[in-house]
Amino acid sequence: MELREHHRQLFDAKTYATVGTLMPDGSPQLTVVWVARDGDDLLISTVIGRQKEKNLRRDPRVSVLAVHPTNPYDYVEIRGTATLSTDGVPELIQRLSAKYAGRPYTGDGPDDQRVVVRVRPERVISRA
Amino acid sequence: MELREHHRQLFDAKTYATVGTLMPDGSPQLTVVWVARDGDDLLISTVIGRQKEKNLRRDPRVSVLAVHPTNPYDYVEIRGTATLSTDGVPELIQRLSAKYAGRPYTGDGPDDQRVVVRVRPERVISRA
Repeated sequence: MELREHHRQLFDAKTYATVGTLMPDGSPQLTVVWVARDGDDLLISTVIGRQKEKNLRRDPRVSVLAVHPTNPYDYVEIRGTATLSTDGVPELIQRLSAKYAGRPYTGDGPDDQRVVVRVRPERVISRA
Repeated sequence: MELREHHRQLFDAKTYATVGTLMPDGSPQLTVVWVARDGDDLLISTVIGRQKEKNLRRDPRVSVLAVHPTNPYDYVEIRGTATLSTDGVPELIQRLSAKYAGRPYTGDGPDDQRVVVRVRPERVISRA
């Protein structure tokens, strides 16, 4: 589905998003992530073996929340389905690092294998 | 379980927390909330019939995330179980409004019935 321009801007801004996934027992798990946008899809970078990666591989149902950096009463929740892929891994982490850290990314260890998490929106809930 | 002093401070600060609940189909749902602390429990105020209230009544498994207001890399996730009660409803919403809005709360309509959501921590995951 299509995102409204205001919601696209929330994800294009330097907004730290919250990702909700499902633990093996079905309970919710939350983390804070860097996020980019590709059209109406959201892109997140993570490392194989991290909790959210294991959760999304098992159950791809995901929710991503972006709150306006200066107005906490303006937020959007995107519910959708995640797909994991190794395509474009270095490009995405460098794009995210440039956006959020303002420098090239060098944070991974030699054994870290990154994946691209692509979230396709199925439902958009907004408050503002 | 007991919260560390640093995590207590995150919830005592004017931090807008993210709450993760479970939709009827088991998928994750996220909202932004005002939060208070009572010892090691977290207190949230909501209205009967809102999505998170319906979700928590059906399945009390919940996760609450607090991110440091000025350092997005310092955050704590509290996973636990929610109990809903009508005890102390006016006191909590006024306490939250004083903390976050700096004025008495007058936002409810005549038919809004509030409840207190008490989250008992069972697992604490922190990044900082």
